Amino acid sequence: MREALDQLKQRLFEAYDLAMVRSLLNWDQTTYMPKGGAPARGRQISLIGRRAHEAFTHVEIGRLLDQLEPLAASLPPDSDDAALIKVTRREYDRATRVPSSFVAEMSQHVAATYQAWTVARPANDFASIRPMLEHTVELSRKYADFFPGWKNVADPFIDHDDHGMTVATIRPLFDSLRKGLVPIVQAIAAKPPTDDSCLRHTAPIEAQLAFGLDVIRRFGYDFERGRQDLTHHPFMTKFSLGDVRITTRSRENDLTDSLFSTLHEAGHAMYEQGIRRDFEGTPLANGTSAGVHESQSRMWENLIGRSRPFWEHFYPKIQASFPAALRDVSVDTFYRAINKVEPSLVRTDADEVTYNLHVMIRFDLEIQLLEGKLAVADLPEAWNARYKSDLGVQAPDHRDGVLQDVHWYGGHVGGAFQGYTLGNILSAQLFRAAVMAKPSIQSETREGTFESLRGWLRENVHQHGAKYTADELTRRATGGPLAIEPYLDYLWDKYAPLYGLKAGERGAVPAGA
Amino acid sequence: MREALDQLKQRLFEAYDLAMVRSLLNWDQTTYMPKGGAPARGRQISLIGRRAHEAFTHVEIGRLLDQLEPLAASLPPDSDDAALIKVTRREYDRATRVPSSFVAEMSQHVAATYQAWTVARPANDFASIRPMLEHTVELSRKYADFFPGWKNVADPFIDHDDHGMTVATIRPLFDSLRKGLVPIVQAIAAKPPTDDSCLRHTAPIEAQLAFGLDVIRRFGYDFERGRQDLTHHPFMTKFSLGDVRITTRSRENDLTDSLFSTLHEAGHAMYEQGIRRDFEGTPLANGTSAGVHESQSRMWENLIGRSRPFWEHFYPKIQASFPAALRDVSVDTFYRAINKVEPSLVRTDADEVTYNLHVMIRFDLEIQLLEGKLAVADLPEAWNARYKSDLGVQAPDHRDGVLQDVHWYGGHVGGAFQGYTLGNILSAQLFRAAVMAKPSIQSETREGTFESLRGWLRENVHQHGAKYTADELTRRATGGPLAIEPYLDYLWDKYAPLYGLKAGERGAVPAGA
Repeated sequence: MREALDQLKQRLFEAYDLAMVRSLLNWDQTTYMPKGGAPARGRQISLIGRRAHEAFTHVEIGRLLDQLEPLAASLPPDSDDAALIKVTRREYDRATRVPSSFVAEMSQHVAATYQAWTVARPANDFASIRPMLEHTVELSRKYADFFPGWKNVADPFIDHDDHGMTVATIRPLFDSLRKGLVPIVQAIAAKPPTDDSCLRHTAPIEAQLAFGLDVIRRFGYDFERGRQDLTHHPFMTKFSLGDVRITTRSRENDLTDSLFSTLHEAGHAMYEQGIRRDFEGTPLANGTSAGVHESQSRMWENLIGRSRPFWEHFYPKIQASFPAALRDVSVDTFYRAINKVEPSLVRTDADEVTYNLHVMIRFDLEIQLLEGKLAVADLPEAWNARYKSDLGVQAPDHRDGVLQDVHWYGGHVGGAFQGYTLGNILSAQLFRAAVMAKPSIQSETREGTFESLRGWLRENVHQHGAKYTADELTRRATGGPLAIEPYLDYLWDKYAPLYGLKAGERGAVPAGA
Repeated sequence: MREALDQLKQRLFEAYDLAMVRSLLNWDQTTYMPKGGAPARGRQISLIGRRAHEAFTHVEIGRLLDQLEPLAASLPPDSDDAALIKVTRREYDRATRVPSSFVAEMSQHVAATYQAWTVARPANDFASIRPMLEHTVELSRKYADFFPGWKNVADPFIDHDDHGMTVATIRPLFDSLRKGLVPIVQAIAAKPPTDDSCLRHTAPIEAQLAFGLDVIRRFGYDFERGRQDLTHHPFMTKFSLGDVRITTRSRENDLTDSLFSTLHEAGHAMYEQGIRRDFEGTPLANGTSAGVHESQSRMWENLIGRSRPFWEHFYPKIQASFPAALRDVSVDTFYRAINKVEPSLVRTDADEVTYNLHVMIRFDLEIQLLEGKLAVADLPEAWNARYKSDLGVQAPDHRDGVLQDVHWYGGHVGGAFQGYTLGNILSAQLFRAAVMAKPSIQSETREGTFESLRGWLRENVHQHGAKYTADELTRRATGGPLAIEPYLDYLWDKYAPLYGLKAGERGAVPAGA
């Protein structure tokens, strides 16, 4: 039996390494590859991707898993090997249910759609890409049908990224959240707008990057097992648990865009860097869900990086880095500027308070598309109507409207967005638990040190990788299931003083929160 | 039949892409990979290397080659498809003759030896690595035995890198060359030494790199299909014909080290960039031999980059780049400095005239090791004796003696060095032919443009990739077989005026040159 387990681990290791190699091909493509490398690179990525898929879906892995079932049943539920067998079984079943002919068809279509989107978006041309998106919706429905038994056609996608969640469990959570957010957004909208012009000064890219690197070094991002490079869109990627890299973009006329993207990606990366090294080579050597991953990035970006205690330490330093821009700006003015709340068109530029409204629009619309309740032809209108009703803004074009996110044009439709909001919710819940366990977190943040928070996260979140589901992890770390109350409390406690909101303006905290 | 050819090409393409992916893993390892990535990277390189080997040695490729033999025989000898079948057959037979168990044993031993060498060299410790080198010699002999029929045990290795050559064909060439070189070296040694102190000024790395990049852009290195990064040891690598990268090192206190390494690697890279794009994915999409490859790097580095006409154009530019170092230095002084001839200990630092003496020492010693005429235990003594007799210098330690080159410690023993000197010889022969065909090469060089030379090389060398053997290519391009006379003429014509040598000091040009 032990021998079967060793054999399984060996096979998994090969599939894992192939997947890591594919990530390196991607990383190089977006960082350093010269233009002329593109055609071959597409071919090489798909070759290694196919080899990785073949290795992971090999019939021998299925046989070994069958053979190991009695072992898994005999082990204590908390055992690493039991978790390995369970998680591998789940991912193996998922990967083998979809015929490889369909995988090939889908990935070809997605690649073509992505290419078309890179042209259509700058051209503001939804019409040209509409037929492709219609086909994506069709293919996505077919994909869902490989997982019979779903209650909602979006459930298989949601389960893939946020295992254990469904439309039925997410909807009430999101509805309550919306009820809690809308009064805050409305109360803030009634106040005079924040002046954030101090962030629009020209700031040398090198100094921006150096400042961000200094902060994440203090966070605990390990540069012996990672590095940062420049890309058009920031991301985190890993080639082993010993090599977890991040990227950022930089804009000369935006003082903090690169900084917050750096803190965000470092949050993702520290999760991966913190996973137990003995999980390397197995499906346990990953973050457990999109939501938990996002809780880590948002915690370091927002709950730490946009907090008052953080800037008590770092403001003199950023002033010294950008004297021309910040010499005459007070920490209060700066703190207000980086926390400006303003309903806007673009999700990735949105503030903490309105961000989740963007996500919920997409979550609802993609389910309607999958359910056939919304035609792709009517998507732009539905998009604009929701922006008008939920955020009170209207996109002047498709570019910053329905074409703004890559997700639907670079993948399937369904399950692509809920993780962002699940992560925001969880970030506050975990942070509350961390501060309860280690009250020194607040004073350390004021001193620019982060050992207690990092230690608590490593102990309660990072090290476990995918051993526990998001729900198990949340209960173990916070004592209860995912809940929106800590998140709404956090937003209120932060933004009420910032905007001079009165207790009566909060609205009732939704029942069941 | 055409179908079999298409099937062959498809299988070759996969093996080719896997080999390219392996190169990217290597490139990243030496450029950007953080320390923590090392263990996984070793594993990943060996995994992809194994997969590439399996793909290329697949039994189906042998079957297709058998099936295609009548087609190859029916095609005109100059046909691309005939060349593809011939070259693939040669490489397939070579790759399949060695059992994979031996390949695994060898590569494990080599990896361990390389690791040990990285420790032993700085520690000046030959004794510790001696047993490993002894085993390398044994394994190398075994390897040769997979290719029965050799006249000299080194022949299979030489054939691998410089197909068509053997110890029997190289030895007379090298002997004649030595006879031609020694009088020149001795005549120069009798002159006062050149003052090259102007090159030892501190020069900012960034300006060094910028100058080198500007030169190779003018050479015609295509940055849309390549880039340069920093590594400890400079090299060229490729991930497709559309992505041929180079690396360089930089030393702040050496004005031209990075420059000449850049010109050298760009010469290699322009060869690969110039290969016909329709060869992509086949064994034809490579330089045809180590010697021809080196002829390209040495031509741009030395025959162009260290020439008087070149510096007529570039000297004012380099003066402007490094005013503190060169403001008061004349172009003559600089030209003498970069062409200083001085017997020295380290091959990679050697000047043009003495360089080949270093190579011949290694060529002779590795054959003696393989033949069992020299024991590894006696290698340091033999090494030092040859340096004393051939170059008149004595290494103070093993570090710059027998431990200086990675080749024996990072691969097999045999066939590792002859390509350097074959390349030097060929560089002058090709250059003479190019200037005969396009006399404007000299005046263009004076103007810092290189279209005629690049065009001639592309036409006569680069585009063909591995379609023709080195010998076929040399005959087509120059009208005759490899000959040392153009090279000895070149050296004499350049160094006689530099050192005020008189005709009588040249010695007789060796017979058969």
